[in-house]
Amino acid sequence: MKLALLGCGLLGGSTAAAWRRSGCVSSVSGYDLVPARVERGLALGIVDHAAASVADAVAGADCIVLATPVGSMAPLLRELVRHAPVDAIITDVGSTKAALVASARQALGDTFGRLVPAHPIAGGALSGIDYASADLFEGCWVITTPLEETRADALQRVEANWTACGATVERMAATEHDRIFAAVSHLPHLLAFALVDLVASQSDGARKLRFAGAGFRDFTRIAASDPSMWRDIAMANRAALGPELAQYRRQLEVLQAALDAGDAEKLEGLFERASRVRRNSRLGNGGRGEHDA
Amino acid sequence: MKLALLGCGLLGGSTAAAWRRSGCVSSVSGYDLVPARVERGLALGIVDHAAASVADAVAGADCIVLATPVGSMAPLLRELVRHAPVDAIITDVGSTKAALVASARQALGDTFGRLVPAHPIAGGALSGIDYASADLFEGCWVITTPLEETRADALQRVEANWTACGATVERMAATEHDRIFAAVSHLPHLLAFALVDLVASQSDGARKLRFAGAGFRDFTRIAASDPSMWRDIAMANRAALGPELAQYRRQLEVLQAALDAGDAEKLEGLFERASRVRRNSRLGNGGRGEHDA
Repeated sequence: MKLALLGCGLLGGSTAAAWRRSGCVSSVSGYDLVPARVERGLALGIVDHAAASVADAVAGADCIVLATPVGSMAPLLRELVRHAPVDAIITDVGSTKAALVASARQALGDTFGRLVPAHPIAGGALSGIDYASADLFEGCWVITTPLEETRADALQRVEANWTACGATVERMAATEHDRIFAAVSHLPHLLAFALVDLVASQSDGARKLRFAGAGFRDFTRIAASDPSMWRDIAMANRAALGPELAQYRRQLEVLQAALDAGDAEKLEGLFERASRVRRNSRLGNGGRGEHDA
Repeated sequence: MKLALLGCGLLGGSTAAAWRRSGCVSSVSGYDLVPARVERGLALGIVDHAAASVADAVAGADCIVLATPVGSMAPLLRELVRHAPVDAIITDVGSTKAALVASARQALGDTFGRLVPAHPIAGGALSGIDYASADLFEGCWVITTPLEETRADALQRVEANWTACGATVERMAATEHDRIFAAVSHLPHLLAFALVDLVASQSDGARKLRFAGAGFRDFTRIAASDPSMWRDIAMANRAALGPELAQYRRQLEVLQAALDAGDAEKLEGLFERASRVRRNSRLGNGGRGEHDA
């Protein structure tokens, strides 16, 4: 299968590398707005052909992977539809799904069925194709959000590619996907950005940061994520993220009231419920958390 | 120096072990409300004498370390003052300082000067004296919050003990301490408890948790901390934590407005400022953060 990779970053590069290693892909044509990234892909052996344009990249492709920030996918779809083979499968690795589905429905028209919306839940501490790895998806979830119109052969092909890389595929509706990841990924990032910005901007911020413990350092690590990528995600998933943030703000209102009233029991009840989650789920090892109080 | 350790957990046990190894302490008398913890301390060689009561523990002590949850320190002070040698140094390892200072001033009366409020910024992934380590404080901060009345010899002694264990001592006012740690420790814990409880209590919570990425797992790890310990900290530091939480809630209000209005620029500006903090401070390695979007 001839792959066109649009967007040569960590996730796109890892997808191309993993699909190639598992035998799903025979050649990769790569394109990126930043030519240096494609050149790195060539040097790393991830990309075989450095395409000079979207048209060049998708010419003769069997499968096109959108691996740009989610905010760039709508214009990309409008451009590639003019050049891609009409039966080429189009899929993506983006973190939000409903917005992509809506813009693809418009851009692809009658051939909307060739789109297979997908989201591999993977990443690394560092971004960029230099850190791409064919191992990235081993043991990871890949969510697909097929629609009624989705071509069965396209869906089957994309899911088989992911399974071949060691990932576990789960199908769900795009709206359910967006609601889930608003809660367990996008909102935590928003909260971390908000806290780190708040503390850093306080008049005694530098002194506070000096004494930050492990808990706060977790927040700064999350908040060190790419700002433009997360702007795109927040914007693309506004419909699901807005209500989750609103619910969280109500939760903090409850906490503030308990704190102001000195209601120790209420605080402990909430802390106790939260602390049980790690022990009762596959998220942790059953141990207690950090104590750098 | 003969040490009385009141509270045989991770931090108390590590303090006794570290002070002994650095030659600051010759014997340790241990007491805990849960006798099994003292027995473990004995078995581990951290405690030499398993005291049956506070009175028994502090008899003949040169230095008394309060290492219980901060909510237990006030009654403990009222009890020990009846039994401890009047010139014995009293210090602690608690996460909040103003509340301790206030209750010690009342309990100790004329001998309030023997109190050296201290807070070693250290901890481990697991709690309990079984995980205590003499190495725990190497390279850590220890904050002391001496008062005008604090005996110079007591302050010097406690700070020397910490320095001997590889820690760096920083003096500040108790109110500044509490404001700093409200922002960089207590608030992050509150936010993590709140998020994990919120998601877990939603009707689709179990399904959401199934797909949690690294960002959310950081929150669950923080939220797995001991609920009663954090209830105590939140209550003891209400005066500083309340305003920090209120400021954070205003920050989230700004974010919600930007999200609802689709103000991408405002979102990116805030994300950008936050993401610079890790790069510009000693908190990180200059790399970008996690990308399991």
